[in-house]
Amino acid sequence: MSPYRGSAGRTEEWRHLRVERADGVVTVTLDRPDKLNALTFGAYADLRDLLTELPHHGDTRVLVLAGAGRGFCSGGDVDEIIGATLAMGAGQLLDFTRMTGQVVRAIREAPFPVVAAVHGVAAGAGSVIALACDFRIVERSARFAFLFTKVGLAGADMGAAYLLPRMVGLGHATRLLMLGDTLGAEEADRIGLVSELVDDGTADASAAALAKRLATGPALAYAQTKALLTAELDMPLAAAVEMDATTQALLMTSEDYAEFHAAFTGKRSPNWKGR
Amino acid sequence: MSPYRGSAGRTEEWRHLRVERADGVVTVTLDRPDKLNALTFGAYADLRDLLTELPHHGDTRVLVLAGAGRGFCSGGDVDEIIGATLAMGAGQLLDFTRMTGQVVRAIREAPFPVVAAVHGVAAGAGSVIALACDFRIVERSARFAFLFTKVGLAGADMGAAYLLPRMVGLGHATRLLMLGDTLGAEEADRIGLVSELVDDGTADASAAALAKRLATGPALAYAQTKALLTAELDMPLAAAVEMDATTQALLMTSEDYAEFHAAFTGKRSPNWKGR
Amino acid sequence: MSPYRGSAGRTEEWRHLRVERADGVVTVTLDRPDKLNALTFGAYADLRDLLTELPHHGDTRVLVLAGAGRGFCSGGDVDEIIGATLAMGAGQLLDFTRMTGQVVRAIREAPFPVVAAVHGVAAGAGSVIALACDFRIVERSARFAFLFTKVGLAGADMGAAYLLPRMVGLGHATRLLMLGDTLGAEEADRIGLVSELVDDGTADASAAALAKRLATGPALAYAQTKALLTAELDMPLAAAVEMDATTQALLMTSEDYAEFHAAFTGKRSPNWKGR
Repeated sequence: MSPYRGSAGRTEEWRHLRVERADGVVTVTLDRPDKLNALTFGAYADLRDLLTELPHHGDTRVLVLAGAGRGFCSGGDVDEIIGATLAMGAGQLLDFTRMTGQVVRAIREAPFPVVAAVHGVAAGAGSVIALACDFRIVERSARFAFLFTKVGLAGADMGAAYLLPRMVGLGHATRLLMLGDTLGAEEADRIGLVSELVDDGTADASAAALAKRLATGPALAYAQTKALLTAELDMPLAAAVEMDATTQALLMTSEDYAEFHAAFTGKRSPNWKGR
Repeated sequence: MSPYRGSAGRTEEWRHLRVERADGVVTVTLDRPDKLNALTFGAYADLRDLLTELPHHGDTRVLVLAGAGRGFCSGGDVDEIIGATLAMGAGQLLDFTRMTGQVVRAIREAPFPVVAAVHGVAAGAGSVIALACDFRIVERSARFAFLFTKVGLAGADMGAAYLLPRMVGLGHATRLLMLGDTLGAEEADRIGLVSELVDDGTADASAAALAKRLATGPALAYAQTKALLTAELDMPLAAAVEMDATTQALLMTSEDYAEFHAAFTGKRSPNWKGR
Repeated sequence: MSPYRGSAGRTEEWRHLRVERADGVVTVTLDRPDKLNALTFGAYADLRDLLTELPHHGDTRVLVLAGAGRGFCSGGDVDEIIGATLAMGAGQLLDFTRMTGQVVRAIREAPFPVVAAVHGVAAGAGSVIALACDFRIVERSARFAFLFTKVGLAGADMGAAYLLPRMVGLGHATRLLMLGDTLGAEEADRIGLVSELVDDGTADASAAALAKRLATGPALAYAQTKALLTAELDMPLAAAVEMDATTQALLMTSEDYAEFHAAFTGKRSPNWKGR
């Protein structure tokens, strides 16, 4: 646990998400299967708050995002969210859209890797949340749909117009965000959107296996890798190289780095401590 | 038509381009087929001026760029342009090269999607103009050639060294811009340079079909998607997410967003107004 | 030779590298085959110094990086470097990590193309050095391993977290840098890390052939292409287009540009001077 705890308590119960913790892995399941896990205002707010809280506790090494039932997440709920926003004024609208963007920023800035286990559909906000994760474990029959223009909104939702070109290139990103058409897993894999393509019915198990590997490995090294991947997208070469130099100098004082050397010279496997 | 009209009239006749308008789609055809549509000073200037004028009129929803005859565009005319530039001083040279770059900036910054219909060769400036478009509809026998080094110039022409790495990655971009070798459509497709690969003889029709889809769809949503894709290449994550939030809040007040909801709840197709 | 020579002499003998010069091509061979060319402090320092010196001499048109024996480079030497760094303080650690980063910056900022001839393994710092080059000629049985997390360090080493996402996209880069797993040449080719995939035993010859082409071609045009590819990764569109315009205006006054036109009108091949 982190020694840097303020007065705020840990949330005891997440009402809009299923949250499980075990051995450094926090698994968050979107759990509204009758609605294909369509996001409600509450679910967005819970994702934002959970991602704000977790780093403060200091005991999360990996976060897994998954969906219950037939798919990952069908995006914002048409009935609850689109209907409600039609009655909102400018300030209220911005409150909502900023909250959704905050979820993506929090995923990218979380000091631990985030793994999406994608089966079935990842549509709208669901596709952007998967996009923002560090790893996307994707089943062969899964599909993505950045369908924002199909509801009359910009394809640039929650940072998608920033993230997607940096993952699949400007050409593919333009096509996907402008047209909003559905993208199958094989094509998503071909253009670089998939970290690991797996058989149907195995995304959750594959994500859990990856999470276990990450949680039991050199977790500080993983966390810094993620932090620098996020930061260096926005930095020039010279600054990025300097940032790497400082980070590596710091990690060369870590227990895991010494452990690697001891294990290597002792001809045994490292016993990672994650610090 | 836009209410923001100054004293400048609309150009009545484009002498160096073929320009057609119908139903919100402006189709610009490079029409010098005996020279493979090699660009002249006049053609560059017309492209610059047309792309400056069109947004001011406010009635263009999509722009299509095509080439007459056997190919899309063979680039700057060797006889007219290269010969003439050899006699120019520094200021004149810069006037010319800035004009060419302005064409690319204007395509990227145009407040509507731009579709290139590519058949035959897209070489030199022709390949960069296609690269700058939002969509590249490419026939199977088409080929690109960023051949600038083959005439003794830098491969970084008209923004190519900015755009190409962001579309196909730094490795492919370096190879293509440094060596200037010809790239076939299949390989271009493999590396992410092609939006839609089509059969020979069908690029113009496919581009027209896409243009019709874009022009009759939620055009404001498309326009903002394009604007944010362009802008967010140059923005850090936090600013991009904020820009998305503001844009979506604005579009949630648009007619098309309300129309989507009405159509969805009424179980009918949306009747997009483009605003 | 450059007229801009200060008091510093040219290094007569590189003790930690094999350096050969011929016809504008400098070939640097990592030559510690019994250790898979593991890098020592001396080798890093020599790479840094050589890359600092070469541009000042003004007679290098291309640099080739190769490895003697069974592989390209297995990265930092576990015995010499990891062992030594465990005993270092903060300042010493930073001196070392900054030196390694300086090698990558120097490759990217060198005013000539750099070609890596990769066979066998390119691991750790070896993989980042190959990544930083302009061209990677890669044998079919070669493999890359960005294995930093496997020694307890961040995958962001020597600019890797800056360069790799810009070459293969953020998704692949995250997977490769976070997990540190080995990547075969075919997969590396599929994701954009390979400039030219060649048969086993032919990387050195292929690299020499490419180097000869570059050294006997329009070398100033190649050098500027490389410089602008490096610079424009860190520039917004408008500035990049302006930089291209200025560069092309300058190169339109070059001997090679005039030579192209003379050759074209004379229906003969250009006789490139490289200036």
